[in-house]
Amino acid sequence: MEIIGERINGMFKDIREAIKNKDKKPVQDMAIKQTENGAAWLDINTGPSAENPMEAMKWLITTVQEVVDTPLSLDSTNYDIIEEGLKLCKRPALINSCHADRYKIERVFPMAVKYNAKVIGLAMSETSGIPKTADARLPLAMELVAAADEFGLPMEDLYIDPLILPVNVGQDYVIESLETLRQIKTLADPAPKTTVGLSNISQRCQNRKLLNRTMLVMLMAYGLDSAIADANDDDLMAAAATARVLMNKEIYCDSFVELYKSKRY
Amino acid sequence: MEIIGERINGMFKDIREAIKNKDKKPVQDMAIKQTENGAAWLDINTGPSAENPMEAMKWLITTVQEVVDTPLSLDSTNYDIIEEGLKLCKRPALINSCHADRYKIERVFPMAVKYNAKVIGLAMSETSGIPKTADARLPLAMELVAAADEFGLPMEDLYIDPLILPVNVGQDYVIESLETLRQIKTLADPAPKTTVGLSNISQRCQNRKLLNRTMLVMLMAYGLDSAIADANDDDLMAAAATARVLMNKEIYCDSFVELYKSKRY
Repeated sequence: MEIIGERINGMFKDIREAIKNKDKKPVQDMAIKQTENGAAWLDINTGPSAENPMEAMKWLITTVQEVVDTPLSLDSTNYDIIEEGLKLCKRPALINSCHADRYKIERVFPMAVKYNAKVIGLAMSETSGIPKTADARLPLAMELVAAADEFGLPMEDLYIDPLILPVNVGQDYVIESLETLRQIKTLADPAPKTTVGLSNISQRCQNRKLLNRTMLVMLMAYGLDSAIADANDDDLMAAAATARVLMNKEIYCDSFVELYKSKRY
Repeated sequence: MEIIGERINGMFKDIREAIKNKDKKPVQDMAIKQTENGAAWLDINTGPSAENPMEAMKWLITTVQEVVDTPLSLDSTNYDIIEEGLKLCKRPALINSCHADRYKIERVFPMAVKYNAKVIGLAMSETSGIPKTADARLPLAMELVAAADEFGLPMEDLYIDPLILPVNVGQDYVIESLETLRQIKTLADPAPKTTVGLSNISQRCQNRKLLNRTMLVMLMAYGLDSAIADANDDDLMAAAATARVLMNKEIYCDSFVELYKSKRY
């Protein structure tokens, strides 16, 4: 279970201010903290209000790489920004994200191959939106699998996101997301990897952390490989460690929680 | 998710002493505490060391029913003790448990029908032990389903236990238990209910509560209906409430954790 630390994002006030003032410390502190807490990746997102998003992305990447060597997930809807970012990444990065629309696939997948990057592919398109049922999401996941084959992206470098909605909005979508996950693993051999934007499940809900970690465990029971999530949430990380042991992906030992953080899966 | 409170059991020292000294207070306090914390059932087990297990069972039942009306789960390997206990139960009880051996089925299922009781049926037999794979457990579950039909036990009164072993002993059994659960739900329409002895998963492990609640959530993602568990573990009960909302079995509201306890599913 690779946790993609979500905290370096201009949606959070501390990071937004840091970007504005070119203040490295809050960004670097957050990069170190998430890494020490077990994040396997660090998501980098300038947020919607950055004055010059291209410059902000480049500054964030450089700033983070000064203090940690954790690989980065470049999170933007502007692929030119992602491409400039990829040029700066010292380690193979993750492109976050690509819808299952043909024109986006044609832009993203060759870029991923060129820069030796991985891709988060969403099981949705501009025309479909987020389909409700697993049956409707699977063909979109299949588009992404076919694209990996077509453009030469190794299947294990494709992370398909079955998509989750806030539980207070799309409560009946949760079961469909679980079933989608299960079926994604049957689409190819080797199977693509899977990921989700975990915190979505609890947007505008009470008990956010409880919802997040409970959802993570359910998703892991259906084979989830990674999640964009709050690596600084100790209870979440402990739940991930435990589910990993229960799913027999790590041999049980008494110190399985500490071991998980130290390995940064 | 019906939690069958596990704490009135002579394996625990406080209950063992209470039985020995015919001291009602510890037993009644535990009955009230578990009920207030959301237990839908109270398991009653004299433990292996009771001097006169038949008398101990009857005393426990009477003692508990003086203070709560929570239905009881009679937990014994001696069916004569269970039958005497059933005669005392004010509300329909749960028989815990029956292996999938023919001679046990013939003793337990007619007794359940006679006393309007429900049955926990184990997906194991004396010859099979606990089979490793889901494929090997399913025929045993099917024996129990067929027995319900044969003896006239309503299918929703049969609780099949797919069985879980301690993770440090049978780590590769967990996934098989999940798959067994999923398939049990396909054996009949209406489907039988399902339950597990949850605390088994963490016997002689560190982080017992973390393992218990993580396992419970995984099992609920595969359709688990109930569990014999520690109703006094607040984090466990909160996890159950959350998984119930995520599985769309309770409409989301901000106070879903408190609601769960008050309803005693």
